[in-house]
This record gives sequence, C-alpha cells and structure tokens, in this order.
Amino acid sequence: MEERTYIKDLKNKIGEEVSISGWVSARRDHGKLIFVDLRDMSGMVQMVVLPNYVEAHQMADKLRPEWVVEIKGKVNQRPDKMINKDEENGSFEIEVLEIKVISEAKELPFEREAELNLDTYLDYLPLTLRAEEKKTVFRVQAVILQAFRDFLISENFIEIQVPKIIGEDAEGGAEVFEINYFKNKAYLATSPQFYKQIMVGVFERVFTIGNVFRAEKHSTTRHLNEYTSLDLEFGFIKDHHDIMNMETKLLQFIVKELGNKCQKEFALLKAELPKVPDEIPFMKLSEAQKVIKKEYGEDCLGEPDLEPQHERWLCEYAKKEFNSDFIFITHYPVEKRPMYTYEDESDKGFTKSFDLLFKGIEITTGGQRIHNYENLVKGIEKKGLNPEKFSFYLQAFKYGMPAHGGLGMGLERLTAKFLNVNNVKEVTLFPREINRIDTLLNK
Amino acid sequence: MEERTYIKDLKNKIGEEVSISGWVSARRDHGKLIFVDLRDMSGMVQMVVLPNYVEAHQMADKLRPEWVVEIKGKVNQRPDKMINKDEENGSFEIEVLEIKVISEAKELPFEREAELNLDTYLDYLPLTLRAEEKKTVFRVQAVILQAFRDFLISENFIEIQVPKIIGEDAEGGAEVFEINYFKNKAYLATSPQFYKQIMVGVFERVFTIGNVFRAEKHSTTRHLNEYTSLDLEFGFIKDHHDIMNMETKLLQFIVKELGNKCQKEFALLKAELPKVPDEIPFMKLSEAQKVIKKEYGEDCLGEPDLEPQHERWLCEYAKKEFNSDFIFITHYPVEKRPMYTYEDESDKGFTKSFDLLFKGIEITTGGQRIHNYENLVKGIEKKGLNPEKFSFYLQAFKYGMPAHGGLGMGLERLTAKFLNVNNVKEVTLFPREINRIDTLLNK
Repeated sequence: MEERTYIKDLKNKIGEEVSISGWVSARRDHGKLIFVDLRDMSGMVQMVVLPNYVEAHQMADKLRPEWVVEIKGKVNQRPDKMINKDEENGSFEIEVLEIKVISEAKELPFEREAELNLDTYLDYLPLTLRAEEKKTVFRVQAVILQAFRDFLISENFIEIQVPKIIGEDAEGGAEVFEINYFKNKAYLATSPQFYKQIMVGVFERVFTIGNVFRAEKHSTTRHLNEYTSLDLEFGFIKDHHDIMNMETKLLQFIVKELGNKCQKEFALLKAELPKVPDEIPFMKLSEAQKVIKKEYGEDCLGEPDLEPQHERWLCEYAKKEFNSDFIFITHYPVEKRPMYTYEDESDKGFTKSFDLLFKGIEITTGGQRIHNYENLVKGIEKKGLNPEKFSFYLQAFKYGMPAHGGLGMGLERLTAKFLNVNNVKEVTLFPREINRIDTLLNK
Repeated sequence: MEERTYIKDLKNKIGEEVSISGWVSARRDHGKLIFVDLRDMSGMVQMVVLPNYVEAHQMADKLRPEWVVEIKGKVNQRPDKMINKDEENGSFEIEVLEIKVISEAKELPFEREAELNLDTYLDYLPLTLRAEEKKTVFRVQAVILQAFRDFLISENFIEIQVPKIIGEDAEGGAEVFEINYFKNKAYLATSPQFYKQIMVGVFERVFTIGNVFRAEKHSTTRHLNEYTSLDLEFGFIKDHHDIMNMETKLLQFIVKELGNKCQKEFALLKAELPKVPDEIPFMKLSEAQKVIKKEYGEDCLGEPDLEPQHERWLCEYAKKEFNSDFIFITHYPVEKRPMYTYEDESDKGFTKSFDLLFKGIEITTGGQRIHNYENLVKGIEKKGLNPEKFSFYLQAFKYGMPAHGGLGMGLERLTAKFLNVNNVKEVTLFPREINRIDTLLNK
C-alpha cells in the first residue's frame, strides 16, 4: 500500500485516495452500510463500507473493537445534513475500498463505555489506557516533563543521571525498600538528594528526573510506592527565596507551555489552567497557624507540621486573600526537617525550608541546605545519626560548597493537581502499591 | 554585594567593577603578588591580589584549593606581554578588591594534577568529578540525552514513565536483583521492554529514559550494575529496516547537536565527532561471519552470536569497505534473542533483529517484535517459559497490536564510545559495581 496518512491530516485530502491505519474503536451496522470508527495516534475518523465493495464489506462485517487494520479509502466530504460539528473530523468520512487486518482482538472483557472501578481499571491497563481521556492525561504529563526540562536548560542547569541503588539506609527512614545486592544489603533511593547536592559542587546548577521508591504501607489516593521525582538544586543563593523565585518562574513556564500545547487536552478533561502570580504569596508556618486559628477557628499553634485539612484551608485563604492558587509555607521547625536543612539564624529552631501548597495539597518540598561541613556534621549528630555513614556525601562539604538549595516534586502529583484527578494512581501509567505490581499480589 | 557576573561574561566588562563567585582552583605567591585561579560553572579566570588591599591580601594568603569565595574586583586588560592566548580568558585578569569566604575546604587528599587510579577516583567522586575533563564528559552526556529526546519529540514520540519495580522475574534471567517488597519478592527491571510495547498499543510511538539494573557479577570496563537506558518503540512498521532507518536519523541528529553545542568539549577531550552516513551499511549475521572468515581468517560460521573480537573486525571492515563508523548486523538466530523477537518468514530460524556496532562494540540492540497474540504465546513456550506469568503483558496483544519494534541503548556506553573513553565507569557519575556502592562494600 502507499504511504500512510495520519488521521489528523485527512482534512487536507478531501477527494483523494489514502491509506490509513489504526484501531477499530466501534462498528455500527446500518442495514447494508457498515460504519467503523477508526483511531490512530493523531485522531479518530468515521469510515463507511458500502456493499458494492464485496470483499471489504465481508471483512468489515467481522471487525470488532481493537482490531488493528490498514485501510485504503477515499476521503469524501459529508453531505451537509450529515456533518457533525462536535466531532473533530465530522465534516468528512472515509469510503472504504480495501481492508487489511493486521491484528485481531479477543472479545473485550467489558463494555467500552463502562465506568470501571479502580481495580478493574488497573487489572486491564494495557487495554484501559487506550481510552481517550486516559491518553490525554499522559499527553499532558509528557508536556509538563518537557517544560520542566526546557525551562531548567534555559536557566543553565545541567541534567544529571543519579543511581537508585544506595548502599546505606542512611537517613534511617522506615520507608525504604531493601535489595539483595550480591552478598550485601542495599536499598532503593527515596530521593536523589545527596547526589544532586554533591553535583552542585561540580556544576552549580543541576536537575535530575527519575524514579524514586517509598515503602509506604498504606494505600491512599495520594501515595505511590514508586514515582517520578523532578529535582533541581543550585548554588550561590542568598537564601530560600532564591529557590522559591526559581520555582515560581518554572511554574509560570510550565503553565505557559500547557497553554500553548494542551488547550484541547484541558478542555477534554474539563480542567482549567491555574494562574501563577508574579510573586507567589508566602508565610511562615507560625503565621499560617495564626491564620488557621483566626479564620477557621482551629488552634494548631506550635504544631511542627500542617495536617491535610490545614493545607486545604491555607489554599482557600490564599485564593481569597491573594487571588493565588499557590502559597509557600516556610520555616518548618528543625526537628521536622531532614538533617541537611538550613536553620534560620534570625529565627532559631526554624529552617529556611518551604512547602508549596496548590489546590489544597503540598506539591513541592524545598529549601536552603547546610553548606558548612562542621554544621552539617552537627546536624547529622543532632538527628541521632552516625556521620561516618555519610562519609561519601560529606566529602562534597569537606572540599568547599557554596550556599545552595533546591526542591523536589512528584510528576504524578503535579499532573493530578493540574488536571483535578483525585487519585494519583490514575495519573501513573503502572502504579505500584502494597498489594499490586501490575497484577494483585499474594498476601 | 552587587549582582554576580559569570566568568564567561567578564570579557564584556573590561574596566568595570564586578562581583564574581566560585571555587579556588589554584593559588600562586609571586613575592607580594598573589595569583588565584577562580572557576565557576562558566569558566576560569586569573585574579591578582595586590598588597595595597591589605584585608584582601591577608585573606588571599589563606586561600587554598576548593575554597568557595565571593570576590569584588576590577576587570583589567592584561599588558600585551602577559596575554596568554591558550587560556580562554587569558587577555584580562581580575584585580581583587574584596574577598568574602563562603566555605573553606580541608586539605585535598592528593595533588590536583595527580593521575589517580580508578579506585581512588571513585572513592573521592564528590571531589574528583570537579576536574574540567570530567565535567566535560558529563556536559556532553547531557547534550546526547537532550538530543535523543528532542529528536523523538519532533518525530511525534511521547515520553512515558515506566516502573522499575517488577513483580515477576519473568524472563528468568540470572541477572536480576531481588527486592523485599512488603511480604512478597519483587525484582528490579532490567529493561522497560514490556511497558514500552504495551504503550505502543496506546500511543503508537513512545520513548522512555530511566535507570535499569543488571546483577552482573563481573566487574569489567563495559558493564555496569545500574545504567541509564534510552528506549524507543513504535508501531505500524513494515519490518526492522524502519527501526534501523529511525535510528540512523536519530544518530544523525545527535551528532549534529553535538557539533553545534560541544565543539569545545570534543576538542578538550581530543575526540572527533563520527560521521553518520545517509544509510548505515547492514548485513546478516551469517554474511558477517563470512566476511570475518574471508578477511580475518577466523571461522565462526554458524555461531549464534559475535565475540567482541568479531565486532571489532566488522567495524574495521565497515570503515574500510563503506567508509562508515557504524554497521548494523541483522538476523540473529531465534534461540539467541528474547521470546518476543520476530522471526523472519523468509529466513526461518533467524530474526528481524539487529545490533548496531560502533567503534568495535555493540551500542544498540533492537528489532521487530511479535505482534500476534498466538505467536507470542508460542514464542514464550518455546523458551520454556510459562505464559501465565506474562498475563499482564499479553493483554496488549490479546486486544490488538500493530506490527512494531524498537531499540534500546545505554547512555553511558554511547557517551564512552563518542568520547573514546575506555571504561564505561568513567562516564557514569556514580557507578555501581559488585564491590562498590559509592564506597567499597564489605565482602
């Protein structure tokens, strides 16, 4: 057959003979006419098979959803009264001349339009991911990813590849997976933190994208056992505000790119692009707690962290008070933050760290890090950890580090929040949970 | 202090006062003058500290390699006889007015210019990666990565995120790491193969970049226990030549981008950019074996695979015969290739698969895959494997898959070959090996 035409390009070929390929989405028999909806990576088109093409008609009769076919046909303008303005390609249809079957498909395990419960959706991902709404989610995700990189490259960050097998469960977290590494135990990284800091000593500005792993025992709508972490880290900062400013510019760029490339996708998913203000409002945790008491009547003053309900309230407040979908909360207490977090000299006991809240949930954690070797050793000891276990990482600080900081965010959570998807598992292609790795596990 | 100027921009500020920051690379006392080489992410510059700036001079006297400093100084044209044309910024120097120390550094464990053995280099990575030649390697690597993505996005591929925790050691390879996954065993992915194939059923064209893991017991210059795999897969192909053609265009693009962005880097590392011919020559394994016999006198006819020496000979032959640095070898036998490999109907027992050889070594493995469900089940059974263990993956084929194929390549090996680095560990930021995860392991 001749060169394949993508469905999105058919509108420029009215009256021509074309070769198209794709999946059968639906077949409808209308007396002697058979209508087939065909989809490829670029769109969907209606085809009509007339009885006078005997071979094609016999074949069309056999077609079932998800069969893969190669079609020779003619692109015909539809009569005026048949034009469907709600369909992207509703002004024309394909008159089928030949059908070649590339793959048959077994009978589908459920109706195409059925509302599936999450477990069924996950059991059948190779099939359920083919639905248009699902594909749309992951198209948007790919654009977020690309925008993240393009922005950082334009700001002279260098992308680095860091390992996911680590030698020590150094931070002593309960949430780490253990690996059998030849004759030793090793662990799966819960973040690229140490490596990106080390690399600030090499390149000043780095970012890294990769899977990270958390042995979360609870299966919730906000947790994943494996997710894609977007991380950046850079040196020669004044304080955490430099990082918050970088993140603001980054989010502005991502939203601009989504606006340029994903209008259709947002419309289909009935989601709206957020506005990122020129300056995202920020307040200290202690101020935020006062706001919560004053505005919502709950007394959480002095608590070391925010509860989910507090985060929702603060987002509501930021929208009302500052007309912003985003708000930074800074100055979490030393004891709630990792050992490398920079303590504010002018607000002892509190750190130059931040969370970014968006639509009621934390989407980023970041902050300035300790760059002085002796202070970092003290920070490690204060957490009751053994500095010797950190000897490799500590070299970076032993041999001269600038003031620096950075942030990390989960691609899946970010996608979910942009698209108003409730469950982060629905914006993860193949989510891992305690009872499931693709299929359900034996307990 | 005022806004920081990057060292690369100093040449536009002759006669001006500037603020610069970075690491001390070297300090030289010339009587009362102290010379300091300062480097930042953008370059290196010579600074001179005169005795009449008493405070700065006292401070300069203390400076040691790797101290991090912030400098206020004046950019002075050097006198003609002091101009060093071999230095990038050899036509001017900084007259230091003020020095602020951001971080001190401990005494370095070895001389900066010392030739280190590999173990010492690896023991001290946070320091040794700061050497200019090392940074250059990873700058080139970042450009390769970016070019890989940019090319595929321009060809309408979608980037996908796939998990690295897998539930079954399904292919039964000896090289898989085991994880303790709550109450179950799980494994680390050795490739994203199944997921990228499944996603061809969703998006037709996908690529994915991520760490993969191989429990290689031998520590060689060509193996890593964890590396970055660049993978692509696409549907509606005619045969493996469509994939080889896509790879040819991809390599042409990467080489073009390296030519645009990394001239300086290749010069510094004394490496030359390869030429990618319009069509990379290809031959069947059986033909290649005849060439080896005829040209090099070794009889390996009928062997199922090539030995390293054979690969070197074939590259030499391709250079001599076709003036190409690259050569595709196709049609490896069914028994040597994974169960999803497509058998050539017109050359039974051999597959529509290929290796790409470059500078004496295989840098890519790819091929057409089986897309027919029944044939794939047979392929699995023929390898003595249990199709039930593949039930999740098999769904993609049960519900309609186009003819498709793809390839994978290791970013580190590709970087090594482009830059003529012998040991793949030297082009991996933090290489994992049987006896080392950052530091040496206890055996």
